Amino acid sequence: MIGLAGAGVAGIAATSGVLALTEEERQPPPATSGDAIPFYGVRQAGIITPAQDRLHFVAFDVTTSKRAELVAMLENWTAAAARMTAGLDAGTIGAVGGIPEAPPDDTGEAIGLPASGLTLTIGFGPSLFRKFGLSGQRPEALEDLPHFPGDAIEEKISGGDICIQACSHDPQVAVHAVRNLARLGMGVVSVRWSQLGFGRTSSTSTSQATPRNLFGFKDGTANLKAEEPALLDEHLWVRDGDGPAWLTGGSYLVSRKIRMVVETWDRTPLGEQEAIVGRTKGTGAPLSGGQEFDEPDLSDKSAIPVDAHVRLAHPTQNQGARLLRRGYNFVDGSDGLGRLNAGLFFLAYQRDPRRGFIPVQTSLARRDSMNEYIRHVSSGIFACPPGLQAADDFWGRSLLA
Amino acid sequence: MIGLAGAGVAGIAATSGVLALTEEERQPPPATSGDAIPFYGVRQAGIITPAQDRLHFVAFDVTTSKRAELVAMLENWTAAAARMTAGLDAGTIGAVGGIPEAPPDDTGEAIGLPASGLTLTIGFGPSLFRKFGLSGQRPEALEDLPHFPGDAIEEKISGGDICIQACSHDPQVAVHAVRNLARLGMGVVSVRWSQLGFGRTSSTSTSQATPRNLFGFKDGTANLKAEEPALLDEHLWVRDGDGPAWLTGGSYLVSRKIRMVVETWDRTPLGEQEAIVGRTKGTGAPLSGGQEFDEPDLSDKSAIPVDAHVRLAHPTQNQGARLLRRGYNFVDGSDGLGRLNAGLFFLAYQRDPRRGFIPVQTSLARRDSMNEYIRHVSSGIFACPPGLQAADDFWGRSLLA
Repeated sequence: MIGLAGAGVAGIAATSGVLALTEEERQPPPATSGDAIPFYGVRQAGIITPAQDRLHFVAFDVTTSKRAELVAMLENWTAAAARMTAGLDAGTIGAVGGIPEAPPDDTGEAIGLPASGLTLTIGFGPSLFRKFGLSGQRPEALEDLPHFPGDAIEEKISGGDICIQACSHDPQVAVHAVRNLARLGMGVVSVRWSQLGFGRTSSTSTSQATPRNLFGFKDGTANLKAEEPALLDEHLWVRDGDGPAWLTGGSYLVSRKIRMVVETWDRTPLGEQEAIVGRTKGTGAPLSGGQEFDEPDLSDKSAIPVDAHVRLAHPTQNQGARLLRRGYNFVDGSDGLGRLNAGLFFLAYQRDPRRGFIPVQTSLARRDSMNEYIRHVSSGIFACPPGLQAADDFWGRSLLA
Repeated sequence: MIGLAGAGVAGIAATSGVLALTEEERQPPPATSGDAIPFYGVRQAGIITPAQDRLHFVAFDVTTSKRAELVAMLENWTAAAARMTAGLDAGTIGAVGGIPEAPPDDTGEAIGLPASGLTLTIGFGPSLFRKFGLSGQRPEALEDLPHFPGDAIEEKISGGDICIQACSHDPQVAVHAVRNLARLGMGVVSVRWSQLGFGRTSSTSTSQATPRNLFGFKDGTANLKAEEPALLDEHLWVRDGDGPAWLTGGSYLVSRKIRMVVETWDRTPLGEQEAIVGRTKGTGAPLSGGQEFDEPDLSDKSAIPVDAHVRLAHPTQNQGARLLRRGYNFVDGSDGLGRLNAGLFFLAYQRDPRRGFIPVQTSLARRDSMNEYIRHVSSGIFACPPGLQAADDFWGRSLLA
């Protein structure tokens, strides 16, 4: 992050309890960093962007009842997000060039670090629409997810009015971005829950090797990928007529924190692990034969059991449903029972959760033999608007303004 | 990690409830990865090794009462550690080349990843010596740390019989190593607590730039560094005659999880932040003037307040005490009160905690103006033996065998 010294003092003036940015800070920043990903575009960055290695995901509750304060904060967030994704401080009066009498308008821990592929992706949860008289704008598909068999959802780490997905090659850059948005949101939003992910578990581009989840298996082999525009139009992007106009060109995000009981898994014979997944552990090839990217032969029930994960999640078993998965491995210390608190923070984008995640998860929750080793503990759903294409546009304007 | 297929089946035989390794697995592995750090040496790797970017730290409780089982596990751990730090699977019968009837002897999530600078450093806590009749071998300096003013220590995430510090450039590699040691230790140890760190906060070599902590300041400017052998002999390594022979050439590790109230900090004026630290936020120069690596002029009490962190932690204020710090930034989600659960996982190595961490922390806990923004919630102390120099040696042999 590059500090811009010597900017005017007006930037630190507080209006209505909301930190305000100067006009200069509202201008789109120059691209300054070779590894920066463009913030402006038809789509939000961070969806089909080749999945970065690290994640900081945060869900906020809106604490103000004043719509103008929320709008002002979203304007400030947008300006700060445009700056940070370009490798700049969150505001012009950063730690470098700050004035002694005011809090810096950047927290400083990313000074000297490049943009590091940072993307910031925003989504709005169903609960937001119950506030500020927005229920007429709520897409029908944006409803809290149903209870699935086996769910052990903890409300405190679920839901949220607004989510931000921060992805980067450098975790310090992702954490810095979330923290500065939280700082700019003081008095308007508060952090409901947040989750770090240390390793991506899906590829979103054919240019990426398939990574491994904490079961030790390749994950996301059959993921939707950026290089498949026709499939993305069919399964990922919300179309004109699907719902309210403000979401056209956007997507729905489902988040699920899936605790894995890795200690039990690690005592399971290799053959049983492979039968549960439906793929070999070494290469990721389907048990029906071939290579990783070959289609599994689901007619071969002796090779791929009826309750194998790859079978139950397969589009042909779910009316053609496909998702763009973008999950991350996590370890949150230990669970007090002698085990690591580890698993998969599942993130998936889709055109309509009623034809995407919900039917797939209904099928998995009922029959997947993997269920013995996992537990869903957090759930979220968010509507993610299309990208911003003009420098004077801001997150949520088409919804709120 | 590279899987070695086709190894014998003997490796999966379980003896006395302890997973056993084959003779082949006990041999020192060939160096296979360009970014591997040697496991064998006069000192344990992971102390003066240039600090890697990511951490997974774990503390175990020993759950067996049978010394032979503990010894057997430490032999297996040593063999697995030598293999993993070289970029290999934890055992020869990994996920690749595994046999279907047995659990794989590697969990698989690091298949295809290089060694990534992995170091594994072991330490023994005071509680271990109360077991197995080892009290005669306990160094006098290895005592649970005293209560310091302001401490809010949670016992469940403190202490431990054995610790492993796993550092790597890739968090997936560090997590993989800890998880496989936990797997090999089933029935002998259980995970008491564990902590991920995403960004190093100290340099341990003059070749490294000084990183920043979550207060946004450079941290560890005056750290002990690998290039200062005379200072390391004086302050870092346990000498002959300091205590029991098994620890000569080793060091003491103090761990402290320090929660930072970043939201309050972020509302503090820049000038106040700098007065608390005693350095400028931008460059890290002492407030008495000069550049980052210039000595602070502590006689200048108008520039560096009497309760500034840099003053109270300075060797001249603590009978010359110096530490080798090796801490990491952490974010563990949120705290349920609308705030990020973030801070510094402080790790410091030293020759004698009674002349190192304890007097420094006593001084800081009483007077440091930073205390308003931090809270120590976890505490640990461990004696870390010297390095292993022979392929038939194993962790803890000089103590236990």
